[in-house]
Amino acid sequence: MERILLAHGGGGSLTKQLIRDLVVARFGNPALAPLSDSALVELPQGRVAFTTDSYVVKPLRFRGGDIGRLAISGTVNDLAMAGARPLYISLALILEEGLALDDLAAILDSAKAAVDEAGVTVVCGDTKVVERGAADGCFINTSGIGVISEGVSVAMERAAPGDAILVNGSIGDHGVAIMSAREGLSFDTPVSSDVAPLGGLVAAVLEAGGDAVHALRDPTRGGLGMVVCEVAEACRHDIELDEVKIPVRPEVQGACDLLGLDPLYVANEGKVVVVCAEAVASKVLTAMRAHPLGRSAVAIGRVLDGAKGRVTLRTTIGGRRVVDPPYGEQLPRIC
Amino acid sequence: MERILLAHGGGGSLTKQLIRDLVVARFGNPALAPLSDSALVELPQGRVAFTTDSYVVKPLRFRGGDIGRLAISGTVNDLAMAGARPLYISLALILEEGLALDDLAAILDSAKAAVDEAGVTVVCGDTKVVERGAADGCFINTSGIGVISEGVSVAMERAAPGDAILVNGSIGDHGVAIMSAREGLSFDTPVSSDVAPLGGLVAAVLEAGGDAVHALRDPTRGGLGMVVCEVAEACRHDIELDEVKIPVRPEVQGACDLLGLDPLYVANEGKVVVVCAEAVASKVLTAMRAHPLGRSAVAIGRVLDGAKGRVTLRTTIGGRRVVDPPYGEQLPRIC
Repeated sequence: MERILLAHGGGGSLTKQLIRDLVVARFGNPALAPLSDSALVELPQGRVAFTTDSYVVKPLRFRGGDIGRLAISGTVNDLAMAGARPLYISLALILEEGLALDDLAAILDSAKAAVDEAGVTVVCGDTKVVERGAADGCFINTSGIGVISEGVSVAMERAAPGDAILVNGSIGDHGVAIMSAREGLSFDTPVSSDVAPLGGLVAAVLEAGGDAVHALRDPTRGGLGMVVCEVAEACRHDIELDEVKIPVRPEVQGACDLLGLDPLYVANEGKVVVVCAEAVASKVLTAMRAHPLGRSAVAIGRVLDGAKGRVTLRTTIGGRRVVDPPYGEQLPRIC
Repeated sequence: MERILLAHGGGGSLTKQLIRDLVVARFGNPALAPLSDSALVELPQGRVAFTTDSYVVKPLRFRGGDIGRLAISGTVNDLAMAGARPLYISLALILEEGLALDDLAAILDSAKAAVDEAGVTVVCGDTKVVERGAADGCFINTSGIGVISEGVSVAMERAAPGDAILVNGSIGDHGVAIMSAREGLSFDTPVSSDVAPLGGLVAAVLEAGGDAVHALRDPTRGGLGMVVCEVAEACRHDIELDEVKIPVRPEVQGACDLLGLDPLYVANEGKVVVVCAEAVASKVLTAMRAHPLGRSAVAIGRVLDGAKGRVTLRTTIGGRRVVDPPYGEQLPRIC
């Protein structure tokens, strides 16, 4: 089996060959084609959003996705959460000497499928190789540029009393899928990661809700619990969540019970939390449910008048508990 | 001594503390301040350049610089080589558990100094931590956005017969500095890396030469030899270099002799190769020499009529040899 050599990252002819055969063959487009120091891109009118994320997920492949799909989806989602239409993506690989070229090809195939699904373009990239033991297979950094249309203004500070809190489906799937893969756990119903690019779903939300969409967040590291705490802190209003309304797959709940995790704090990679005026909530929910990534969209809570910035959960048994922000992610290398 | 823990990368309160104390304390600005998923930036009129690079240099600190200065300079330079004014930078850290916080602080101090020198703004970032042994201290990815002014059009294809080839100073300094640090070599006159952000120097070149500046390249991995070969291949003209004119510090030449390296292929991180019409060469050289990073600027060759895209070197002893593109970088993890 052919494997990555140090010389693949040296910038010479082996690097060129790798980039031509593995990267350009998949992602080729006029902006990427020159393989020059910088890509030249055209931006439509609007405010520009810029984001970056490195992906170090372990294992590289898991049920429902891999680091390639994750690296594209995560950065597309960061742009979408700013209310931006994701347009251009950079793709930077740090490869460990010895990585099988077939594994790298599969990761890039998966990234390419996510790129097409998201309707974005990879315009620039970089490849570095480090010696065996100096990295763990493959790390990927993606940065992204998007443009925010006139009339869109999402910010956690805009969340206001009476606003509805919506989510597009079940929580905790990504974290449990990773944990299961890592620990070799198997369940009767295996859990797949929800990793997906949400640009299209978010566009539908913004079209339905317009300016009454106040905030968008993707509950990745730290899960739903963390982003709702962040919204409450930023807008300085209390938020109440209904535990009974929060969708958790039974197999995810079961795995969490087994592992001592709270699904509220488990990472997602294909979920969006929408905070919008109550008046448009039902219209937005309808739009979400019409999208393949939003079929199980549901309202899970509301912003209250209280100004302590505190989050409470009405539990399934009718009690009430405070939701605190987590100290740290329960699982390392979840993304 | 305090060290990086896995929880520093978990996205929870320890991550927030690290980002506040180490990143925002240095790079804070209105775009970075919200620490949201994406930064919102304003771009002036002009074509937009977008670039990315990961830095895996070993060791993290070397004479003349460190990975922090390198990560800012390298990405600023990639934008500058497109003829763009570098504006916004992303900063993504992959940290190994156990990295000393003081070492990280020193790296970020150095990055901050380079940011100020380059006149750019860090607007977004990311921090991931991997367990001990899964990375090598610290990897940094920076992406960058710049804007190309009206009237600027640099591309290797524009190099034309008669054009002068200029360089802003001695070659091979970065590669030899890294190699010396890594191998524990010491020389009577220690070699310092040339790592520096070249945005200001390139702006001076473009102001002096205008549209007659045809191509700009930074001879990083693969060195001067590689970029000149790439220019020749792209413009489909032969290029002749004068070995006697190419500045090489005696201590760099000495180290290369000892290590069996050819300075022509050794990496630089603060050099620019300018290809411009002969008519403006002297004006451009004067402008370069007036800049602190171009005091030793010199003409080292010219584009010929020949259309084979071949590079030849007139050697110091009056001979002539073909310069081939390197197979790969001679040293891994040079940047």
